[in-house]
Amino acid sequence: MSDPRPIGVFDSGVGGLTVLSEIRDRLPFEHTIYFGDTARVPYGVRDLSEVRWFTFEIVRYLIGQNVKLVVIACNTATAAALKAVQRSFDVPIVGVIEPGARAAVVDTIGRRVGVLATEGTVASGAYGRAVKSLDAGIQVYEQACPEFVPLIEQGIVDGPELEAVALRYLAPMMERRVDAVILGCTHYPLISSVINRILGPEVRLISSAGQTALEVRSILSRRSYLRRPQHPDDTGLATYVCSASPDEFAALGSRFMEEEIQAVSPAVVV
Amino acid sequence: MSDPRPIGVFDSGVGGLTVLSEIRDRLPFEHTIYFGDTARVPYGVRDLSEVRWFTFEIVRYLIGQNVKLVVIACNTATAAALKAVQRSFDVPIVGVIEPGARAAVVDTIGRRVGVLATEGTVASGAYGRAVKSLDAGIQVYEQACPEFVPLIEQGIVDGPELEAVALRYLAPMMERRVDAVILGCTHYPLISSVINRILGPEVRLISSAGQTALEVRSILSRRSYLRRPQHPDDTGLATYVCSASPDEFAALGSRFMEEEIQAVSPAVVV
Repeated sequence: MSDPRPIGVFDSGVGGLTVLSEIRDRLPFEHTIYFGDTARVPYGVRDLSEVRWFTFEIVRYLIGQNVKLVVIACNTATAAALKAVQRSFDVPIVGVIEPGARAAVVDTIGRRVGVLATEGTVASGAYGRAVKSLDAGIQVYEQACPEFVPLIEQGIVDGPELEAVALRYLAPMMERRVDAVILGCTHYPLISSVINRILGPEVRLISSAGQTALEVRSILSRRSYLRRPQHPDDTGLATYVCSASPDEFAALGSRFMEEEIQAVSPAVVV
Repeated sequence: MSDPRPIGVFDSGVGGLTVLSEIRDRLPFEHTIYFGDTARVPYGVRDLSEVRWFTFEIVRYLIGQNVKLVVIACNTATAAALKAVQRSFDVPIVGVIEPGARAAVVDTIGRRVGVLATEGTVASGAYGRAVKSLDAGIQVYEQACPEFVPLIEQGIVDGPELEAVALRYLAPMMERRVDAVILGCTHYPLISSVINRILGPEVRLISSAGQTALEVRSILSRRSYLRRPQHPDDTGLATYVCSASPDEFAALGSRFMEEEIQAVSPAVVV
């Protein structure tokens, strides 16, 4: 049996491409369709109810594209809407918060976990709940980092300006001696070297991307939803769609994917 | 680095040996100490507050034996006390409910999950919460099975009497068309062939034992808590302790472990 339907992945912009990249590495024969909501990026500063509305629109759009599974590759949208869309649709829907929380629970030795995320994600408290549901004895310190996404989207992923901002966000967390820090926004893996340098080698940095990809693989494989290739070179197609500025999306996205993004179709989902 | 401290595993009686067996299969070089609270078995019909008290006593006893990790290999004790002991002790403590819930979320296609468990576990609602925290759209049907444990402990693991009881518990669940059923008590793997026969090949049966062992391995390995053997035959020692009737424990336990249990020391933990 072979299921050729694509996997749908979405984010407010390009950040979710870090998750898509891990999925394509682990499931090279799967077709994927990525939706970046570039017309309304960023989500992190918006009301959660507004983000929930956007998420419903985009999940509906992807299901209209006949996807077999949806990945909400955006922490803010996961925090705002995962449970609501899971209740409303029949396809399996996977978020990025629980996989990251799970990795942190395994990684922390002193049972002190830090979370770097957008204001929306921190306000939702979703990471704290997810970590404590796995180990109620873990202390969780969440830090909103509103300046990271604008800097990263300008291409500033290193240098003194970013370092100063990062140090400000990380200092309170270091004082509390966290030993595992979740990058709770899909943009942040691009600045992980700076964060790593400040936190030092004893602190583990956790990106949800890899964990999420593993979960996608196990769900598809247990349901016999995997696509079987015709021959070893029959790799899956990657389709990219965004809601505005396709050229900018392709340029910035190529950096996230570490390969060139060729075709981007603009789409209106509302 | 090698950490020779044992892994502590406990259950109200012999049921948790199904979990111990999976742990020893996957981590053959680890020393283990198993505690069966045979003086106070079964837990499933007791008040959760009483079970919580017993769990604190036994975790304290195991920590006194210098364990590096505790597995609560009992669904009722996990439901009653996991969060409370995690908050109170420094060693990592793993329960059996979350791993079973996770396996069910991956296994169900129709997003209808059944849970067979003791009255205490069902009353706690812990499985429903654990499954819905992973996929809020899944329907969970929990069924208390008070007659299973007494039958199993009498050695009745097949035949018309057990079948009649099982059919009574399973019929409502089958009407609701569940396609994944969690064996939510560590005794139940011993009657899985009967349950399987009634439910049919389309329904997946989930035992937490294997999933829990995988979680133990990942926690120990990420913390560098694994024991390194001196040579390939340097397998870990299995120590068994129970609170009453050591001969009976050894006889019944050998069936669960599929190998002979040699030495059982009686211990008083209160």
